[in-house]
Amino acid sequence: MGVQGDWTNTQAAAEPRHREADQPSSLVAMFGTDEPLQLTSGASLAPWQIAYQTYGTLNADKSNAILICHALTGDQHVANVNPVTGKPGWWGLMVGPGKPVDTDRFFVICSNVLGSCLGTTGPATTNPLTGRPYALDLPVVTIADMVRAQEMLVDRLGIDTLFAVVGGSMGGMQVLQWAASQPERVFAAVPLAAGARHSSQNIAFHEVGRQAIMADPEWRAGRYLEEGTRPAKGLSVARMAAHITYMSELALQRKFGRALQDRPNITFGFDADFQVESYLRHQGLSFVDRFDANSYLYVTRAMDYFDLAADHGGVLSRAFTGTRTRFCVVSFTSDWLFPTRESRMVVHALNAAAANVSFVEIDTDRGHDSFLLDEPEMFRTVRGFLTGAAKARGIAPPAEPS
Amino acid sequence: MGVQGDWTNTQAAAEPRHREADQPSSLVAMFGTDEPLQLTSGASLAPWQIAYQTYGTLNADKSNAILICHALTGDQHVANVNPVTGKPGWWGLMVGPGKPVDTDRFFVICSNVLGSCLGTTGPATTNPLTGRPYALDLPVVTIADMVRAQEMLVDRLGIDTLFAVVGGSMGGMQVLQWAASQPERVFAAVPLAAGARHSSQNIAFHEVGRQAIMADPEWRAGRYLEEGTRPAKGLSVARMAAHITYMSELALQRKFGRALQDRPNITFGFDADFQVESYLRHQGLSFVDRFDANSYLYVTRAMDYFDLAADHGGVLSRAFTGTRTRFCVVSFTSDWLFPTRESRMVVHALNAAAANVSFVEIDTDRGHDSFLLDEPEMFRTVRGFLTGAAKARGIAPPAEPS
Repeated sequence: MGVQGDWTNTQAAAEPRHREADQPSSLVAMFGTDEPLQLTSGASLAPWQIAYQTYGTLNADKSNAILICHALTGDQHVANVNPVTGKPGWWGLMVGPGKPVDTDRFFVICSNVLGSCLGTTGPATTNPLTGRPYALDLPVVTIADMVRAQEMLVDRLGIDTLFAVVGGSMGGMQVLQWAASQPERVFAAVPLAAGARHSSQNIAFHEVGRQAIMADPEWRAGRYLEEGTRPAKGLSVARMAAHITYMSELALQRKFGRALQDRPNITFGFDADFQVESYLRHQGLSFVDRFDANSYLYVTRAMDYFDLAADHGGVLSRAFTGTRTRFCVVSFTSDWLFPTRESRMVVHALNAAAANVSFVEIDTDRGHDSFLLDEPEMFRTVRGFLTGAAKARGIAPPAEPS
Repeated sequence: MGVQGDWTNTQAAAEPRHREADQPSSLVAMFGTDEPLQLTSGASLAPWQIAYQTYGTLNADKSNAILICHALTGDQHVANVNPVTGKPGWWGLMVGPGKPVDTDRFFVICSNVLGSCLGTTGPATTNPLTGRPYALDLPVVTIADMVRAQEMLVDRLGIDTLFAVVGGSMGGMQVLQWAASQPERVFAAVPLAAGARHSSQNIAFHEVGRQAIMADPEWRAGRYLEEGTRPAKGLSVARMAAHITYMSELALQRKFGRALQDRPNITFGFDADFQVESYLRHQGLSFVDRFDANSYLYVTRAMDYFDLAADHGGVLSRAFTGTRTRFCVVSFTSDWLFPTRESRMVVHALNAAAANVSFVEIDTDRGHDSFLLDEPEMFRTVRGFLTGAAKARGIAPPAEPS
């Protein structure tokens, strides 16, 4: 890759060239380059940038780097307080000192995906050709494009081979894509609550969300940033619909059942009588404060387009031919967005490719979002797998506290 | 009930008093009355009307009447060509000459539910106090209110006891409500793909749909009919989200998979690349031609509010104490809107009430809408159950063709 025109900005360093206005100046690590990013669609993107965080220390032989891939609307703040929302990192249970992804032992990288809106180039970014936000003029990106951008970041960090790539949901798709397109650069891969394709039902739910956004007249054919409007209602409805799919029916029933919201009786009206309505409305409303509507279109589309088998002549195992990567595939019994059979298809393909693979289905009634929750068996599984792989890779254990 | 002020209009009879403008003059059977309909909310409604269809002949002792209850957006045209859409009746596979609900043997009634928009009083009906459509001034109605309106229709038809009440989904809720509130008037009850309550997840999906409608600026706080607007986009999104829940994931995957719509490759855009997207968009668009947005709010709310156990001190079996009604409860393995466990709760309650109950779970991968589809085991089950019950009731078998 070209070095000229690249620029990297680490925490508390100088203003990054393409820093978004709402990005606090601290806690911003940014890699940007004028070198075009070649996209699956045939288009290319330049300049572009990727926002990321790192944790822990890269060892001398640069063998201990773990890339964490986030899900649909996630961000790079996997294990630090999010500077925008003030909330803890989204996977603090999994990543940190002494955690399954142990930052005392591993150098952890997490970057915001291409097409998102949290520092990395996306439809809200200014199009250098027009001086206006890209909106729908940004080429549609794929999971492979997200991974290509991450590769260039990993290059820039001077890392040849990642010890591991770990992620859930859309993050798990990126893990599989890394393993398929850069097998030499991935020693171990941990896709959780994911699959090698987006199912028809999943595409359907995404399409509902996109239609909700595009139905909002304040969306203005995507030009809302320039026009000073905000498709908040449409984006909120999109989030509400999606949020239902992240939980299991049993989890919703247990958490809310038919309990009423701050009232003794139903009101015979269309207010949020039920707690589950109030909860969903809150999920919708709070989402629009942190996420860009056009980015929602782009990242859902990237998931829809993901189909590793189709990229390999319809035979999934060919995506992994000759791989030496070790895999740990994790699914959750009550996940109906990426049910276990989707993970099983990946495992069968890996078996057919004679890959080294462990597969764990975790029994929980908390649905798709289980990978983000306190699921001890998941932590034990990931810790055990990474510990074994680290030994095989010759990574020193963390120093004993003296 | 009062008779003065009642009026009934049968096929090809005089103009009904409250006939909606878009209702063809043929094929309109209407019962209307000035007698107030007392609603669960405490409000009452007068005048009001109910649109219905009948099939077959009521026998001399009026013992062979079957009431068919339709689902959320269904109508009274269960077994005749719908005069508005030109499509066959929605349950022609189940109801008709020689069908499981045999109109050669039974007198079949099907009425449009209260709150709907297909002839029965609903939010699009003119409010006599204002001369404008009710919109949200129509009191919110419940499943029990729908049943109360049906009772008054059945009274008007001179029928004391219904031989059977049959329905799926929201129709099944009405069946259970009939059995609970008028046990003496229901000889046999067949709830399919239903439950005794709306679950948290089901309320959540309905709330998404309502929010989509109310987010549409053309909804105009419900006053769109007067303002000449039409919340078509919001209603369409609501229907799209709901439609996903009517099918199983496997059915969607089998029917559409990831197949593309009239194009060899993905287009890297937000058009309907996938068949499932095109199908859903079509479902949404065609729905807005046949259904009123405010009615959608009302009937979804009625389902949300349904909770037979809560109406009986939290103990579902008390809804059926002392019942002599025979029940045939039917569920479908891949129905995730009303999964089998919801039917099982009803069966357990019926067992606890020492009721006569058969329960059949039908193995199919076609999801909730299975009850509307060609499911031979369902037809055998309903035919067998009704035949046995008809014998017990002393209803003559259909005349042999000579």
